[in-house]
Amino acid sequence: MARRARAARERRRGAGPGIVQIPCRNVRNPYPPMAIFSEDQVEAIHQGSLTVLRDTGMNFLLPEAVEILRREGARVDDDGERVRFDPDMVMEKIRTAPRTFTLHAREPGHNVRIGGDSCVFATVGSTPNVSDIDRGRVSGNFADYCNLLRLTQSVNAAHVVGGYPVEPVDVDPRIRHLQAVSAAARLTNKAIYCYSLGRERVEDSIEIARIARGIDRDTLQSEPSIHTVVNANSPLVYDAPMLLGAMIMAEHNQPVIYTPFTLAGAMAPITIAGALVQQNAEALAGIVFSQCVNPGAPVIYGSFTSNVDMKTGSPAFGTPEYAKATIASGQLARRYGLPLRASNANASNAPDAQSAYESQMSLWSCVLGHTNYVNHGLGWLEGGLCASFEKFILDAEMIQMMISFMAPAEVDDAALAVSAIDEVGPGSHFFQAPHTLERYKTAFYAPMLSDWRNYETWQESGSVDATLRANRIWKQLLAEYEEPVMDPAIRDELDAFVAKRIEAGGAPPL
Amino acid sequence: MARRARAARERRRGAGPGIVQIPCRNVRNPYPPMAIFSEDQVEAIHQGSLTVLRDTGMNFLLPEAVEILRREGARVDDDGERVRFDPDMVMEKIRTAPRTFTLHAREPGHNVRIGGDSCVFATVGSTPNVSDIDRGRVSGNFADYCNLLRLTQSVNAAHVVGGYPVEPVDVDPRIRHLQAVSAAARLTNKAIYCYSLGRERVEDSIEIARIARGIDRDTLQSEPSIHTVVNANSPLVYDAPMLLGAMIMAEHNQPVIYTPFTLAGAMAPITIAGALVQQNAEALAGIVFSQCVNPGAPVIYGSFTSNVDMKTGSPAFGTPEYAKATIASGQLARRYGLPLRASNANASNAPDAQSAYESQMSLWSCVLGHTNYVNHGLGWLEGGLCASFEKFILDAEMIQMMISFMAPAEVDDAALAVSAIDEVGPGSHFFQAPHTLERYKTAFYAPMLSDWRNYETWQESGSVDATLRANRIWKQLLAEYEEPVMDPAIRDELDAFVAKRIEAGGAPPL
Repeated sequence: MARRARAARERRRGAGPGIVQIPCRNVRNPYPPMAIFSEDQVEAIHQGSLTVLRDTGMNFLLPEAVEILRREGARVDDDGERVRFDPDMVMEKIRTAPRTFTLHAREPGHNVRIGGDSCVFATVGSTPNVSDIDRGRVSGNFADYCNLLRLTQSVNAAHVVGGYPVEPVDVDPRIRHLQAVSAAARLTNKAIYCYSLGRERVEDSIEIARIARGIDRDTLQSEPSIHTVVNANSPLVYDAPMLLGAMIMAEHNQPVIYTPFTLAGAMAPITIAGALVQQNAEALAGIVFSQCVNPGAPVIYGSFTSNVDMKTGSPAFGTPEYAKATIASGQLARRYGLPLRASNANASNAPDAQSAYESQMSLWSCVLGHTNYVNHGLGWLEGGLCASFEKFILDAEMIQMMISFMAPAEVDDAALAVSAIDEVGPGSHFFQAPHTLERYKTAFYAPMLSDWRNYETWQESGSVDATLRANRIWKQLLAEYEEPVMDPAIRDELDAFVAKRIEAGGAPPL
Repeated sequence: MARRARAARERRRGAGPGIVQIPCRNVRNPYPPMAIFSEDQVEAIHQGSLTVLRDTGMNFLLPEAVEILRREGARVDDDGERVRFDPDMVMEKIRTAPRTFTLHAREPGHNVRIGGDSCVFATVGSTPNVSDIDRGRVSGNFADYCNLLRLTQSVNAAHVVGGYPVEPVDVDPRIRHLQAVSAAARLTNKAIYCYSLGRERVEDSIEIARIARGIDRDTLQSEPSIHTVVNANSPLVYDAPMLLGAMIMAEHNQPVIYTPFTLAGAMAPITIAGALVQQNAEALAGIVFSQCVNPGAPVIYGSFTSNVDMKTGSPAFGTPEYAKATIASGQLARRYGLPLRASNANASNAPDAQSAYESQMSLWSCVLGHTNYVNHGLGWLEGGLCASFEKFILDAEMIQMMISFMAPAEVDDAALAVSAIDEVGPGSHFFQAPHTLERYKTAFYAPMLSDWRNYETWQESGSVDATLRANRIWKQLLAEYEEPVMDPAIRDELDAFVAKRIEAGGAPPL
């Protein structure tokens, strides 16, 4: 009975039957965070950011937002856009932001804790293109959008939906959010995401999240159920649609990740310290805004500092500079007691060795910096211009390895194995030792993608490299996918809401 | 003049003209080492190892070695092989091992400091096969051996020759060491390596190193010029040829890396803590032996704990368990004040994405554990059964990125860029800012392999993935290779020595 109940629970949580995976679970980072900078250096970056916010300020392109900030003590220029913040105001406002909160999914087993030492991996978001190695690269579309969501449901290393995994550009922009967010709510039972684009889209998306979870508005207010990212238009601008979305999210107590896009040498200073000063100023200004709207509203400090390729001006990711900036962002976020978001980023044009080593540079930085929310965790390619089905699986394997790394090794008398070593003795082996036989089934991480067979066996079975194996795995996962059960009444309510809003014309163009 | 002198120096040090590389330099790890275990847990592993050495002991299969250990206080069984060490003896003996030493190359610019916070990357060693993506995998041979050495010379991320990069099995084993070590001394001017296999081979190799550097025997004694690895035949055995080689190396004050091969679940307990207890016991016993032979002889604590794939029994590398064991080995080595060796290992059968992500797991662990000597840094594939020309270049890129990561970002007023941010202001960009223009040429890491162009440009130029680009790079490096200058008198002496020893029949079969 217990086994059947567990199997049923595993099915609800999406584990496919055929592919070996680690369980889907909340992950805790047990190791001390890494420090790239001394405390004095972190303080210098912090003080630099406060100086920028006090003297240079930021442009807030939404009059309602400016009015809220003015009311709470910020200084506003005559142009009605430039907002300057006194250091005391910044520090006082960010103090009301929660250190941790729970992002709720419609399957409670997929609720994720954000902040502290938790580590959540989200899928790729917002790419205009999609690729697999059979078709190559094509424009984003709803069919691929849905298949990437099905993979999100099936892959245990994907904890939450971290955006539209690819932009479904074949759906009319006025109703795209209705189709896209309701599909995410139906095809997965993990926590979902909406774009912060104006009032109607965000309100519709929040309503979809509420209906899908079968909760009332009061419960939604106390249980964050949908989240968004607000990017600064770096340097030092927040635009109107994103601010309006952020405002509505904060009013409803739904989490906003404030992520400046501070590419050193392009939209930010060319030095890592300077880019971090600017990132920190922009992120703090956004967080201050959320706290002005609704003190205690859940927020995440977003880090996305990388560098451009100075030869071409292209953004580069997973670089040594990116690694330093990400780990340092952890030092800054912890200074404020804020949850941290960073990304599993790379700039490769193919799901090849470059995509793997650049992603590893990013993933290790995320883990060492104690990132709480790793965005673009699965499927990101080309610096965010493409979602790749094969990369999704490569990333799943890499994330599983990082999660296993974050499970600390035991050091008790049994684990120390001094008597087992004595029993086996010199010149023998441990294959048949009782100490081995008691543990061998679960002793080590079992990969879903890595092939550890010897060369001859690997060659006889076709010399299939990692990218081609990833291709086979995502196809199998899609073939085995089952849509998670949804209460028919909830499903009807969801369909009716979406139909009604589509009939009403959706949301106005931006 | 200064520029020409620098160019000449760079040529001597092997930088190829066509491929962008970071300079060849000694690397310092500026960050605090990572702790996987608490101090109590490290102490428990240490005490476990001392118990193993005291109660179980190790088999030393060379009577001369056993006699030396007995003379210095170890207890020897009646079989004349099993040696047991009291904890006090272990701790007293390892105290004479130097914390740091310099390994000398025939080009002084390639001398490397071992220990402390230095981080040296060595090439692949001891693989029986070699591959490139044109030919596939073939048996090790002298032509490929020489080409891998030429790459070692040309690639700045390769600091020392870390073994025969592939076994030249087409050379008679009796004279193989003469051909191989003299080729390494001639084709590179970086520090070289010999196998620890009996008396004649080691003595010949030391003599080749002495001649190549143009120094006398006294200088050789004070300036380590060739190094070796001694593996325990785990569990708990040191075999005769390696011990004899280790003894001669210690007598000549040349460095020995004691590396147990503690595959958890096979040659060591299945638990990481248990495998580390055994690794630590075996490494300390080897180091004690060197110090008994010659107190103060340079040694390195070798870590090579990984796990087997329990399905096939194959060794796996770059696993989460490998990462934990490597970082923990750093905690152990630092407890004793010993330099640490670990490896850039992976178990992939192809220079693909798996080879890259497993190597990254290894490289990050090496850096976080403050590994001083990263063996198999460039070219290792198939868990050590193959040297790959493409992997050599993939690794060079990954190592260059780690080296750049280890160059700390500046945090002074100019780097903080608060006034540059103010000058640019909201809604502009930093491309033309003076702060950018003053720094853009050297601000960021410039890759040798990664392609950061946009997708369309990349596609128009043939959609060349990272592995194929690596193929082109090693070919270009070999085409541009120039043998480093060697004084003709030294060259004649080297040739004469090798010819004389070959004429005498080389070394006896093992």
